[in-house]
Amino acid sequence: MYFLVMKMRSSRNILPLLSTMIQRTCKFSALPELTKDRYPNVKRGNYSQIDTKHLNFFKDLLGETRVITDENECLGYNTDWIKANRGYSRCVLKPKSTDEVAAILKFCNENLLAVCPQGGNTGLVGGSVPVFDEIVLSTSLMNRIISLDETSGVLTCEAGCILENLEKYLDEHRLIMPLDLGAKGSCQIGGNVSTNAGGLRLLRYGNLQGTVLGLEAVTANGQILDCMSTLKKDNTGFHLKHLFIGSEGSLGLVTKVSIQCPPKPKAVNLAFLGLESFDKILMVFKRCKHELGEILSSCEAIDADSLAATTDNLNLKSPLEKFPFYMVIETHGSDNGHDEEKLNRFLSSLMEDGTVEDGIATNEPSKMNAVWQLRERITEGLIHDGYVFKYDLSLPLENFYSLVGIMKERVGKDAVRVSGYGHVGDGNVHLNVAVKEFSADVLNKIEPFIYEYTSKLRGSISAEHGIGFRKTKYMHYSKSKEAIDLMKSIKKMMDPKGILNPYKVLPQ
Amino acid sequence: MYFLVMKMRSSRNILPLLSTMIQRTCKFSALPELTKDRYPNVKRGNYSQIDTKHLNFFKDLLGETRVITDENECLGYNTDWIKANRGYSRCVLKPKSTDEVAAILKFCNENLLAVCPQGGNTGLVGGSVPVFDEIVLSTSLMNRIISLDETSGVLTCEAGCILENLEKYLDEHRLIMPLDLGAKGSCQIGGNVSTNAGGLRLLRYGNLQGTVLGLEAVTANGQILDCMSTLKKDNTGFHLKHLFIGSEGSLGLVTKVSIQCPPKPKAVNLAFLGLESFDKILMVFKRCKHELGEILSSCEAIDADSLAATTDNLNLKSPLEKFPFYMVIETHGSDNGHDEEKLNRFLSSLMEDGTVEDGIATNEPSKMNAVWQLRERITEGLIHDGYVFKYDLSLPLENFYSLVGIMKERVGKDAVRVSGYGHVGDGNVHLNVAVKEFSADVLNKIEPFIYEYTSKLRGSISAEHGIGFRKTKYMHYSKSKEAIDLMKSIKKMMDPKGILNPYKVLPQ
Repeated sequence: MYFLVMKMRSSRNILPLLSTMIQRTCKFSALPELTKDRYPNVKRGNYSQIDTKHLNFFKDLLGETRVITDENECLGYNTDWIKANRGYSRCVLKPKSTDEVAAILKFCNENLLAVCPQGGNTGLVGGSVPVFDEIVLSTSLMNRIISLDETSGVLTCEAGCILENLEKYLDEHRLIMPLDLGAKGSCQIGGNVSTNAGGLRLLRYGNLQGTVLGLEAVTANGQILDCMSTLKKDNTGFHLKHLFIGSEGSLGLVTKVSIQCPPKPKAVNLAFLGLESFDKILMVFKRCKHELGEILSSCEAIDADSLAATTDNLNLKSPLEKFPFYMVIETHGSDNGHDEEKLNRFLSSLMEDGTVEDGIATNEPSKMNAVWQLRERITEGLIHDGYVFKYDLSLPLENFYSLVGIMKERVGKDAVRVSGYGHVGDGNVHLNVAVKEFSADVLNKIEPFIYEYTSKLRGSISAEHGIGFRKTKYMHYSKSKEAIDLMKSIKKMMDPKGILNPYKVLPQ
Repeated sequence: MYFLVMKMRSSRNILPLLSTMIQRTCKFSALPELTKDRYPNVKRGNYSQIDTKHLNFFKDLLGETRVITDENECLGYNTDWIKANRGYSRCVLKPKSTDEVAAILKFCNENLLAVCPQGGNTGLVGGSVPVFDEIVLSTSLMNRIISLDETSGVLTCEAGCILENLEKYLDEHRLIMPLDLGAKGSCQIGGNVSTNAGGLRLLRYGNLQGTVLGLEAVTANGQILDCMSTLKKDNTGFHLKHLFIGSEGSLGLVTKVSIQCPPKPKAVNLAFLGLESFDKILMVFKRCKHELGEILSSCEAIDADSLAATTDNLNLKSPLEKFPFYMVIETHGSDNGHDEEKLNRFLSSLMEDGTVEDGIATNEPSKMNAVWQLRERITEGLIHDGYVFKYDLSLPLENFYSLVGIMKERVGKDAVRVSGYGHVGDGNVHLNVAVKEFSADVLNKIEPFIYEYTSKLRGSISAEHGIGFRKTKYMHYSKSKEAIDLMKSIKKMMDPKGILNPYKVLPQ
């Protein structure tokens, strides 16, 4: 155990922190406006209304307890946790098996009932809650771990497994999940795969398109599609699994996943740095790619306003004094001596030439966790400001932070806070405009400007959160007409009646 | 520079070796039988015969020199380099731009002319040569490097760039390609992407589904589909690029690629080990995953008969005496001192407990290259035996080598050589049955048995080579009926006239 002192602050009394960011309980009293009222231009599709005959079918299939119709009980499934969207479904189904999912979708397809697939409901673009009265198909009870091959590191499990539970299970077997998110305490692997989630260590372990080896999905007509390879290499025909990775439940519902899990690092080290400018963040990133090389596992940037959302609103303590910018740099390696040597050499050179003003480095789990909480709970902290306009952009690195200043000028005093943070190692910035309450005026100051700006720089208007409900009309800023047309043809082919997650992903 | 001596052989005089495995010249005199004669059950589709009117269109578009019609000149494009397949096309087109490709495909689609896309023609399953008289659309002249972002490591280039040329270009910028193949001197990146090529370092740098960030493709009707993102993260709609990664040119012709390139390792080390049994190979693999951890970049197994194909047939010299099995273990890292320490510690423990009998370790480029030649040129060496029945299987690790013994028994003295080698780190074995000349009798002893065996173990009948022409009727051993039906629907939607690479990938 070591604790590198640079110009280190005295070790403050960091309180034990909640291990999960998301509290599903009604922590925030006010409910968001119904989506149908907030977005009156979106019209309900010509789907059937759910009736007693339908409910009886579901109750016969699942039993009474797994068909939820009570309005209050349905509320949590109708509302997204950032209080931005709310549907009014009066039917939540909780299947326990792929066969049950298949029977539900077959019935819904035959009866023209729209379905909203839902995992942990931690999405940030309104993709996981109904827009109108779509039936919610929750995967929460499909949470079995099926197998683990310790030699190859391949984990096979059902879609409803919570990411953090998988992490804990793998830990006993000296393995880790290849992705890690702030929402890990609630998000489910099926939802992660369906949204092609990125997270904190994509830089090191790659994206889900590379690490998901196989999956099982049920298509709109209730057909079970078995693409459950557990092989690292399988070039036999089109790679169908990719139709479901990142298509947000609009082409099929993912029911099982097999995923390549890396060995658990024997050594983990973390540095938390204070910097005077964003330019210096870029300098540090460029250097750490080469100097930390193969052990670099995360490289995150946080601005002062983002950090303040956790220190002011959640009472977390920062181990550093105030700086305009901060970085979290983490290493995963197999030899702690080697890793410490690399990290110390790197940090010393940054301090010597003044690139970094202050910082701490540690491999003490509680201290590393405290730093991660500062990063991972920013989203939660921001919600306490009121309503948050959230943007998740990929931008060329030199423009990574430029939008924050521009947005501060555009929104001015209407905002409680305009802040930016994110995965600088992946060019992915999370820009947030927090306001006291939702305001169409503020929205108009932000959109479509923010998308036009991103498009001009050939960035992505959604780096990792997906399109969901709220970004469909902006997709053309990142995708060509030909590409969108092909997506529509695929949707038409695989879900001709459009029952799966309607109003989402594709522009109308 | 160091050269670790274990029980090292004295340094033999290793001759300078050819840098590329594939010689496109007519090195092997005998031409294979025409595919139409060897596989009489496959009937030519109802495509147009190419006539003067068609040729005139192509000559107007490309000029005389880029429309090849001479029979002898066409021969190289009609024949695959392992002498297993031969078509009889009399029209080879060599566009220089995406627009030219688009014009060609639009015309071919309108005129019902079948097209065989061709990159470096290094495929091993008959996917890159015509079956009958399909027009060959060669990407060889589309070989421009378009851009390189040194900070992010993203390379953008045309499909016809030869892998080794890209490697050389990146080397000047302290980057490497994320894939490396024996065929790198001839294979093109467009073909690599279209076949989802794996290769020697997939274990470390991941598969193309993870590293290809974007691509441009032309679909059957001549439409240009721009999915050329250079962003690591872009979750805006369905991930269309995956329709083209691994679909072997049957859904569209890849014209441009952007790819994430890792930093060039500052330290490269290589060990070449001799072992008494395949069980010991598995022990070494399991241990090196944990003990070499993040620096492990390649883990290859070679049996004695495979090595002999290069020492006997190509006169390469092995630095070790004869063993039943060999392993190549490579590390890529950022600190040579650390890497040597890890590797030495690992190898010493293997020697001490007798897991490994003999071996060398080196970081001298010429010596590392000599070892890699022994591994990379096995395919070439085997061809000198006569005709080779080649299999490229994914199998559970414990069964990785089992088929070699079984196959030796089944084929008996009919074979010149039955051997196995491959990417043990990825569970991917290359099994080869070399015979003096093609024999339907021997083929019947091997197939379908080998696929049934693989299927029973839930392996893949094609780990990295693809389905091509020769494996279409065996796809059901690795894919379900529902999956194959969905593939057929996608093909029908994207290429309704079936002009792109017909008779390939999908079962008839």
